[in-house]
Amino acid sequence: MERKFRYGMVGGGPGAFIGAVHRAALRLNDESELVCGCFSSSAERREEMALELGISKERNYATAEEMALAEAAREDKIDFAVIVTPNYLHYSGAKAFLEQGIDVVSDKPLTFTVEESRDLKRIAAEHGCLFGVTYTYTGHVMAREMRNLIRSGVLGDIRMVMGEYPQDFMLNQLEHSDETNIPWRSVPALSGRGGSVADIGTHVENFVNYVTGLEIDSLCCHLDNLWTGGELDNNVQTLVKFKGGATGIYWASQVAIGYGSALKIRVFGDKGALEFMQEESNYLRLTLRGKPPMILSRGSDYMTPEAKSYSRIPPGHPEGVVEAFANIYLDFCRALRDKAAGKTVVEETYGYPTIDMAIRGVEFYNKCIDSSQAGSTWVKLGSE
Amino acid sequence: MERKFRYGMVGGGPGAFIGAVHRAALRLNDESELVCGCFSSSAERREEMALELGISKERNYATAEEMALAEAAREDKIDFAVIVTPNYLHYSGAKAFLEQGIDVVSDKPLTFTVEESRDLKRIAAEHGCLFGVTYTYTGHVMAREMRNLIRSGVLGDIRMVMGEYPQDFMLNQLEHSDETNIPWRSVPALSGRGGSVADIGTHVENFVNYVTGLEIDSLCCHLDNLWTGGELDNNVQTLVKFKGGATGIYWASQVAIGYGSALKIRVFGDKGALEFMQEESNYLRLTLRGKPPMILSRGSDYMTPEAKSYSRIPPGHPEGVVEAFANIYLDFCRALRDKAAGKTVVEETYGYPTIDMAIRGVEFYNKCIDSSQAGSTWVKLGSE
Amino acid sequence: MERKFRYGMVGGGPGAFIGAVHRAALRLNDESELVCGCFSSSAERREEMALELGISKERNYATAEEMALAEAAREDKIDFAVIVTPNYLHYSGAKAFLEQGIDVVSDKPLTFTVEESRDLKRIAAEHGCLFGVTYTYTGHVMAREMRNLIRSGVLGDIRMVMGEYPQDFMLNQLEHSDETNIPWRSVPALSGRGGSVADIGTHVENFVNYVTGLEIDSLCCHLDNLWTGGELDNNVQTLVKFKGGATGIYWASQVAIGYGSALKIRVFGDKGALEFMQEESNYLRLTLRGKPPMILSRGSDYMTPEAKSYSRIPPGHPEGVVEAFANIYLDFCRALRDKAAGKTVVEETYGYPTIDMAIRGVEFYNKCIDSSQAGSTWVKLGSE
Amino acid sequence: MERKFRYGMVGGGPGAFIGAVHRAALRLNDESELVCGCFSSSAERREEMALELGISKERNYATAEEMALAEAAREDKIDFAVIVTPNYLHYSGAKAFLEQGIDVVSDKPLTFTVEESRDLKRIAAEHGCLFGVTYTYTGHVMAREMRNLIRSGVLGDIRMVMGEYPQDFMLNQLEHSDETNIPWRSVPALSGRGGSVADIGTHVENFVNYVTGLEIDSLCCHLDNLWTGGELDNNVQTLVKFKGGATGIYWASQVAIGYGSALKIRVFGDKGALEFMQEESNYLRLTLRGKPPMILSRGSDYMTPEAKSYSRIPPGHPEGVVEAFANIYLDFCRALRDKAAGKTVVEETYGYPTIDMAIRGVEFYNKCIDSSQAGSTWVKLGSE
Repeated sequence: MERKFRYGMVGGGPGAFIGAVHRAALRLNDESELVCGCFSSSAERREEMALELGISKERNYATAEEMALAEAAREDKIDFAVIVTPNYLHYSGAKAFLEQGIDVVSDKPLTFTVEESRDLKRIAAEHGCLFGVTYTYTGHVMAREMRNLIRSGVLGDIRMVMGEYPQDFMLNQLEHSDETNIPWRSVPALSGRGGSVADIGTHVENFVNYVTGLEIDSLCCHLDNLWTGGELDNNVQTLVKFKGGATGIYWASQVAIGYGSALKIRVFGDKGALEFMQEESNYLRLTLRGKPPMILSRGSDYMTPEAKSYSRIPPGHPEGVVEAFANIYLDFCRALRDKAAGKTVVEETYGYPTIDMAIRGVEFYNKCIDSSQAGSTWVKLGSE
Repeated sequence: MERKFRYGMVGGGPGAFIGAVHRAALRLNDESELVCGCFSSSAERREEMALELGISKERNYATAEEMALAEAAREDKIDFAVIVTPNYLHYSGAKAFLEQGIDVVSDKPLTFTVEESRDLKRIAAEHGCLFGVTYTYTGHVMAREMRNLIRSGVLGDIRMVMGEYPQDFMLNQLEHSDETNIPWRSVPALSGRGGSVADIGTHVENFVNYVTGLEIDSLCCHLDNLWTGGELDNNVQTLVKFKGGATGIYWASQVAIGYGSALKIRVFGDKGALEFMQEESNYLRLTLRGKPPMILSRGSDYMTPEAKSYSRIPPGHPEGVVEAFANIYLDFCRALRDKAAGKTVVEETYGYPTIDMAIRGVEFYNKCIDSSQAGSTWVKLGSE
Repeated sequence: MERKFRYGMVGGGPGAFIGAVHRAALRLNDESELVCGCFSSSAERREEMALELGISKERNYATAEEMALAEAAREDKIDFAVIVTPNYLHYSGAKAFLEQGIDVVSDKPLTFTVEESRDLKRIAAEHGCLFGVTYTYTGHVMAREMRNLIRSGVLGDIRMVMGEYPQDFMLNQLEHSDETNIPWRSVPALSGRGGSVADIGTHVENFVNYVTGLEIDSLCCHLDNLWTGGELDNNVQTLVKFKGGATGIYWASQVAIGYGSALKIRVFGDKGALEFMQEESNYLRLTLRGKPPMILSRGSDYMTPEAKSYSRIPPGHPEGVVEAFANIYLDFCRALRDKAAGKTVVEETYGYPTIDMAIRGVEFYNKCIDSSQAGSTWVKLGSE
Repeated sequence: MERKFRYGMVGGGPGAFIGAVHRAALRLNDESELVCGCFSSSAERREEMALELGISKERNYATAEEMALAEAAREDKIDFAVIVTPNYLHYSGAKAFLEQGIDVVSDKPLTFTVEESRDLKRIAAEHGCLFGVTYTYTGHVMAREMRNLIRSGVLGDIRMVMGEYPQDFMLNQLEHSDETNIPWRSVPALSGRGGSVADIGTHVENFVNYVTGLEIDSLCCHLDNLWTGGELDNNVQTLVKFKGGATGIYWASQVAIGYGSALKIRVFGDKGALEFMQEESNYLRLTLRGKPPMILSRGSDYMTPEAKSYSRIPPGHPEGVVEAFANIYLDFCRALRDKAAGKTVVEETYGYPTIDMAIRGVEFYNKCIDSSQAGSTWVKLGSE
């Protein structure tokens, strides 16, 4: 058995849903072990979590900065840090580890501003650090298949993209205000200036970019806060123009009754079209011009070998979102291994979402807000 | 047996798909009989059609104007005229009959300009004529149910609408250029300045207006002609703001591979959401807040009695688009009957789409084009 | 215009659902006109119906026998008779017309006994009469496509068939006992010894036979009457062995909550599989070995030309069960036309279900009952 | 942190798919650690696996018997053994551990004969051992919800069950004979006298029994080997009569083109019906009499709290089959904990499938074979 990678977690304290999913995904892969953490800003909750997870007292840290320094000084230091805090702590947390030369995986949206994300990119580069961003859905096996099919030219000339991500949990929350892992999303100081646009709108932007390579040139956005009150948007409607002339529509909502986590991405070319739905993540709908739609099933022999290699169980046996996270960690650990072996690591070739994608996401949601605040006018991206 | 209504048809010559569907729908109802027509601009094709349909020589007319005058002079004159020509003839055709006091049903989009449609409204009013517009999909039984449920307040405060209508026949046409009933849609002189935005974009606008009553305040639109060449748009992306503050996204496309006639309308309130899909027109998805989605089935006992009254066969036995047309004609003939009986007829209470809806449709598509041509800026409706 | 065929109807009085559907289907085709009938055993109801349908007094008959004799004597006699009575009158009704040399279309199941059906076959042959049986679902365009694909060998060696037809209307009836068109189905004297096995079980048997050509060698059946009381079965479970070694399972139920009219037929070969669902009758699922399932859509260019020729409207615009009936009448009228033209008519080549299929259906349901009554033992078909 | 349970694995060597899934499920829960194993009958493959899994040399055993004895003698002995070998080794493997008082989880079908399974039950009872059987699909959260809803009486009087489990991998195998984890299923000496009836037919039987409590009284079965050759069945058709009068149809196939792992169970009562589909395991279709079908989504607030407690991530984010396995292990470990705490453990109250279910499964598949070999006659269960 190769040595397992050692990792530490920032955030993910008691009741924090997403931290638990990251840990589960990493256990699923069985390539990494959790050895330290700074799980909460509350000492009591940190204790509780460390006890539950079997983390020794000395490696149960109070801040990301303390953890980064202490770990960097150890012989058995962590190989990478996982940042799963509320958004406002991503920047400082990631920075602390990068400055100690420790590779980082962070949740999204990465930072409040594009400048901060670019700063992290710069620091990572200076210290030769890897940087993965857990845009979960790109880890689904059929997201990989979609990317491969598009890259192989199956769709022809891509000119139109429809992306949507409706959820309804914020409306249901109106009646169940005790859910512990949600409130920070409604607090600008913790979450940033974006609500649903940052939380899930960025998933749409990222998924489209991930599978098509398309980059947004300009956008026109209308943000709403419907029914729930609060300062942040919960409904996003955006027209998008991509570099090169393709166009798209992005819709994200956290108050759309009847939807759980219904990310749906449709990509249209002149030779074919592809559709991915997160709630049916084991399938992909492919239609070639003039032919009947086909329902591709995860793990089937007709898949591209690269994507099929991520499939863990036979067709028809569902994999879920934990496997999606796990696949991103498989990619990241492969890069870690190559880096350790002294190979040149070109991050975008490993499959996990990169710092450049993180920057795009942060720019996307900020420009959406800019556009909406300016009366839903067209706003250019990439221009400073 | 009551006397059947007599009707005449303008357009609908040999090979004209939509005229045949209108006639089939009217036969299905068995309330009306076709007694005259002006089926084509070609004398030969008029002959052929009259022969096929058993129309006498003297009632086989060369123009709508001739038909209107001649019929008006007969004792057994037609009760109504059905206009199913290419768009450019709707205005003059409808006008001819209205001026003779003959009630009219016309296909959509009604005219090239708002002014023309308003003109028809004025003339109809002056002559006391009824005016129905065959926005087909409002005739589906479950469209009626959707309208009833929304009116009854089941969805609560409606603030968001998603409408889409993707098709792919224009792309398939690239390889089959011999389809006879399509070409005029690509010719501005026959079709008007709108392509897909007029042909099917108006269906989205109308369906939403029909079931919710929402009227558009302003819109921001991007039109494309993708891949097929030609002067008219085949892809429409629009952000919509309604009077009263609700918003929406409308997408229509005739080059979206994998779609036949996939009109899909989703309406969201704070108490519930409804979804209608034309290709599964016998069902309706209703979700109440905090409850599981329900699949309502046409003809079931739990339906509102008014909508159920349109259901012709038991649940599970599909009805189709011919029944949708037929239901609109049922409504129109009910109004005819009431008018004949001397009752006051308030057209919008009968169920069929009215001249006001036709005006809205014409304004909608023209403003979409205006917006797109102005660089996809926001354009106000209803202001002259 | 060719002369329209003249037809008379036996049964189909006020409130009789299925008679109305037959008339609607015949109007849709516009090849035939209803000129006489014997719509009910009640004089009052006959009057009512004749008035509604515009049937003259002299051609509004009291019995099928009277109608057959009177029509046979007229110069403008009917071209065919449509029998849509409760089952117990099919035999005598059909016989009356055949003996006068009048072609017949009858509803299913044709008769109470195999002997009666064979008798009708014999009489039809003696008088040179055509005999169509309205097993509705074989009229769906995609049933024709399924048959063509299977005949072309796309599925390879067919060895397994799954057929089911669940409905729930009988359970819903428990609470709505006023539905007027159903009671006779529960009365053995009117309906025969079979309940759901005769009413819808025969649809499963017929559809499978129609699309595959498979004939049943033996069966093992269990019939139940669940919850609703009454003498007849409402739930059928059958294992089937076909001549040649293929096998199948047939399930039919009229008390299966959650189902409207959910006929579903799956046929499996070693090269491919096909699935048809009546409630989604515009589609067909085809899977070739090792390939992803494909969703074929009615009217598409990739269809076999023969089946596509029945498609009336473009892909994505639903057709329904009225069109299915109408297609069967298209076939029958084509045979009528050929017969009138003096051609040799081989009925099974026209597409409509034949008297031989009717015989098979009657034998099927009787043998199911025999098997069930004998303790669900295996019973051989085709042996006398 | 509580001490983790220690477990050992019998079977699950290199390339063995199902052993890997068990280990992944146990890691997901993070309550147990793998400390020893006897992974293969090949010394070389045992070595390879132990190395990969970090198992020490001394706890890498050659046989289950050796492992049971050695572990029983250790202070840090395993808390339970997991048996994931080909079927023929389940009996001897389980017996070895039970005789040492070590609790056991075994894969299904448990043994070749009912006698062997009863023997294991007796031995387990004598040694006070827990015995879990990994009928995977009962671990899906919505299987638990289905069971709870049925127990609460939502469906009323249950009288009819439809169970099917089609797959197509054996046909695809015809072209890909190199799949390493399948061959033993085709070898009677390794697999037993049942093919698909034992491998997946038992899943149908178990799932129905698990959610409804129904026990089979008698059955009539037809087994086939279609196309693939070999001695064992790959297609199962069975009529079932339950104690108490309900009936059912079970179909299982491993040569049904178009299906991955499509277990589908439908349960019908006079008040409602429930449908579960393994490939869409995050949903459940519930229809109450006279109401529209509802689609229940895993994790929603309307779920029964007991079932919801197994849901790991929010609605709309799919969980898969690894979570299903993991839920069974959650149950088993809860029982282990209670046993360790000296509580009385009534195994059937914990949720995991028990030895009694295993016995039923073994009897089921053997009686199916008996029935089929006797010409598909009715065979009684439970009688010796």
